[in-house]
Amino acid sequence: MPETRPETRPATVQGATDYQALFRGAIERLHGERRYRVFADIERINGRFPTARWRRPDAAPREITVWCSNDYLGMGQHPAVVGALTETAQRCGVGAGGTRNIAGNNSPLVDLERELADLHGKEAGLVFTSGYVSNQAGISTIAKLIPNCLILSDAFNHNSMIEGVRQSGCDKRIFRHNDLAHLEELLIAAGDRPKLIAFESVYSMDGDVAPIGKICDLAERYGALTYLDEVHAVGLYGPRGAGIAERDRVMHRVDVIEGTLAKGFGCVGGYITGSAALCDAVRSHAPGFIFTTALPPAIAAAAIASIRHLKQSGTEREAHQRQAGRTKAALLDAGLPVLATDTHIVPVMVGNAEACKAAADRLLERHGIYIQPINYPTVPRGTERLRITPSPFHGEAHIAALREALVEVWDALDLPRAGTVFVEAAE
Amino acid sequence: MPETRPETRPATVQGATDYQALFRGAIERLHGERRYRVFADIERINGRFPTARWRRPDAAPREITVWCSNDYLGMGQHPAVVGALTETAQRCGVGAGGTRNIAGNNSPLVDLERELADLHGKEAGLVFTSGYVSNQAGISTIAKLIPNCLILSDAFNHNSMIEGVRQSGCDKRIFRHNDLAHLEELLIAAGDRPKLIAFESVYSMDGDVAPIGKICDLAERYGALTYLDEVHAVGLYGPRGAGIAERDRVMHRVDVIEGTLAKGFGCVGGYITGSAALCDAVRSHAPGFIFTTALPPAIAAAAIASIRHLKQSGTEREAHQRQAGRTKAALLDAGLPVLATDTHIVPVMVGNAEACKAAADRLLERHGIYIQPINYPTVPRGTERLRITPSPFHGEAHIAALREALVEVWDALDLPRAGTVFVEAAE
Repeated sequence: MPETRPETRPATVQGATDYQALFRGAIERLHGERRYRVFADIERINGRFPTARWRRPDAAPREITVWCSNDYLGMGQHPAVVGALTETAQRCGVGAGGTRNIAGNNSPLVDLERELADLHGKEAGLVFTSGYVSNQAGISTIAKLIPNCLILSDAFNHNSMIEGVRQSGCDKRIFRHNDLAHLEELLIAAGDRPKLIAFESVYSMDGDVAPIGKICDLAERYGALTYLDEVHAVGLYGPRGAGIAERDRVMHRVDVIEGTLAKGFGCVGGYITGSAALCDAVRSHAPGFIFTTALPPAIAAAAIASIRHLKQSGTEREAHQRQAGRTKAALLDAGLPVLATDTHIVPVMVGNAEACKAAADRLLERHGIYIQPINYPTVPRGTERLRITPSPFHGEAHIAALREALVEVWDALDLPRAGTVFVEAAE
Repeated sequence: MPETRPETRPATVQGATDYQALFRGAIERLHGERRYRVFADIERINGRFPTARWRRPDAAPREITVWCSNDYLGMGQHPAVVGALTETAQRCGVGAGGTRNIAGNNSPLVDLERELADLHGKEAGLVFTSGYVSNQAGISTIAKLIPNCLILSDAFNHNSMIEGVRQSGCDKRIFRHNDLAHLEELLIAAGDRPKLIAFESVYSMDGDVAPIGKICDLAERYGALTYLDEVHAVGLYGPRGAGIAERDRVMHRVDVIEGTLAKGFGCVGGYITGSAALCDAVRSHAPGFIFTTALPPAIAAAAIASIRHLKQSGTEREAHQRQAGRTKAALLDAGLPVLATDTHIVPVMVGNAEACKAAADRLLERHGIYIQPINYPTVPRGTERLRITPSPFHGEAHIAALREALVEVWDALDLPRAGTVFVEAAE
C-alpha cells in the first residue's frame, strides 16, 4: 500500500453491498414479469436454409425449420458470399488488426464503402461494426455537429436510434408514428433552428412503411436534414435493392441513408451513406467509429459480393415477396390474427408474454418450428407476438406445415383469433 | 399532405441552415489543427505478416512492412484460425441472421462464451460485437443495476470505458492514473455506498501496467466491485494467455474481466466474463447487446481456435516479448526517444502533431514502413508519438531496417532525441 495512505482509513471492511444479490434480483424480476429470455441454441446449415440444427440442453440435437431469421433472402448462404468470405480470409487472414486509423483500414472495406455509396446514389459511405453502432454513433455525431439542433424522432424508432438521439444530448421531439400532421406541427413549432428528422422505412415489428416522400416534402419546406434507417429494407426493395426510398424514387431526396449488412445482405456490420462532407465529419468525430477495430476484410468482401449480386438480380426479391404473401394468405385463411402489413414481415399477434412464450415453446418442441416470442421491451406490453419472416427458401410445404402447426398451437393454448383487438398496456 | 395541416403553415421555405457547410467547417477545423486523419489503405497478405500491400491513391500498390498492427501475435493469419473461419462458413454460411434472442444465437458463439469463461476462470462469459461495445454496454449496464453506484475510473481509461461510465448516468470520480493513494482517498470519501472500480491492465498508448492486486486489496477493504479491461493483454500474458491478472495470479480476485477477440486473438468482437448472475443480468438488460445482430458463427469459431491455441502454446508469447525487447533495445541504442515500458508496446515520442504526421509519411513513402501517427485525441497534445507494436513475425532484419529508417527520418526532420521531456499541453 502507498505510504500516503490516509490515517483515517478504517480498520474494518466497509461497504457491505452484496453485488451478486443485486444481479440475481434483477434476473428474478424478469422471471416474475414472465419476460426472462432463453436463447435457442441454433446451428445454421449452409445450403439447407431454413433448416437448422437445434442444440437442446438435455437431449440430442434436432433439425428444425427457422421462421424468424432476419437473413431475409438467405444471402448468408449464397455461394458468392460464402466464397468471397473464404477466399478473402485465405488471402488476407481473419482480423483487420486495428482501428480504421491504425493499421485496420483494409482494402475490401474501402471498396465496400464505395459500393454502398453507389448503391444509395450518395457521394460517400461509412461502415461501422454493426447497424446498432451506425445509428448510435451516426445520429449522435451528426446532431452534435449541428449547433442548436432539434431532433424530430418517430415514436416507433429502433432502440439504436433512440440511443443515438439520447447520446447527442440535443433537444428532441417525438412525433406520433408515421404521422405527417404531427411532424409538421413540431417542425413549425421549432421555427428556424436546425432540425434533424430521424425515421425508418420499414418498421420491423409491425412491418409498416414510412411515407418517405412526404417526409422529404416537409423536410424541404421547413429546412430539416433527413436521416432514414433502411435496415429492414436494404437488399429487399427497389430495382437494385437499395431499399424503400429507391423503390419510391425518393432516394436522392434523403440526406442520410443508414443500413445494415446483417439482414438482407446476410453478413454483419452497419453503415451510413450521405454527402462526402457529412461522412468525413462523422468519420473524424464519432468515438464509436474511431476507437474500435475495423470490420475484417473477409466480411467486407462477403458484403460486397452480396450487394453486387442483389444490385443486378431481382429474383430473390420477387421470390421473397411472393412467399411472404403466400404465408400471410395461408395464415389469414386459417383464422389466425395476422397483422396486416405491406411488407415481408408477418406478425401473428398473441397479446400476452406468457402465452407468447408458451406458443413458441410448443411450436419448437412439438412441431420443430422455431419462431422466437417477441415480448416487451421489443414491443409494447399487450402486443406480444410471433414475428414470422418468410424467405425465398420457405416453400409451399414449409408454409403448409407452419399453418398446420400454428392452428394446433392456437387450439391447444386457446389463443386469440383474427378479429381480436390488441391494445398496448399502460406502463 | 394530411388534411389536418395547420393553417399557420408559412408559404415560404423556413430554416436556412446550410448543413453541408457545417460538416465542411468541422473538417476544416481539423485541418487547421493539423489533426485531420488520412487512413492508409492496406491489404493484409495471409502468411506474410507483417508484410502488406499499400494501395496508393495515385500510384501502383506497393509492399510495405506494418509496424503498428494490434494483431499482436499475428494470430489473424494462424492456419488454425483461418481454417476454422473458412470451414465454419462453408458449414454454416456467413451471417448469424439475427440478434442473440431472435434466431442469431449460433452454437459456435455459445461455445465461445464457455471458452472465455474457462479462460478467465469465471462462471460465465458474454460476447459483444466489439470490445468498444463490451465496455460501453458492460460498464453502463452493470453500474445501472447497482442502486446509487459510484464509479471510480482511472484517468487514462479508454474512450469506450469513459462512454460506458457516462452512459450509466452514475456519479463518478476519476482517480489519477494508477495512483493507489488517490484511489483509496476516493474510496474512503465515498463511504458505504456501492462502488465500481473501472481500470485497465495494460494501457495501450503508454504501455504501462496497473497494480491489479493492490487495486483488488483496496476493493476488498472498501467493498467495491472491480471491472478490469484486459484488451491489450489477453492472449499475450499469463500461462494460458488470459492476461496480466492471470500472470500476476490475481485473476480470481477481479469481479469482471473484459477483453477483445480483435487484438491478441486476431479476430473481431469483445466480451466480458464474471459471475453467472452478472453476465445473465447484463445479457438481459444491455440494449447494445440485445438489439444487435450476433457475431457470425465463422468468426466465433475462429476466435475459439485462436484462444484454444494460445491456451496451450506459450511460443508466440515468448517470441513476442523477445522481439519487443529487441526492438526497444535497438531504438534506444540509436538514441531515439523510446518511452520506457514493461510491455510489448514501444512508443517513440515526437511531441507535435505535424511533425508526427510528417515522420509517419516519410517512413511510409521513403522506407516502406507503416506506423500510423498517434495524435490528439488518442493521446494528449504535446505527447504525440509513433506507437510501434513488434510481433513474433518482426525478425532481426525488420528491426534493423526499422532502426535505420527511424534514424534517417529523425535526422531529416530534426526530431527530439532520447532525454527530451514531453509535457502535455494545456487544453
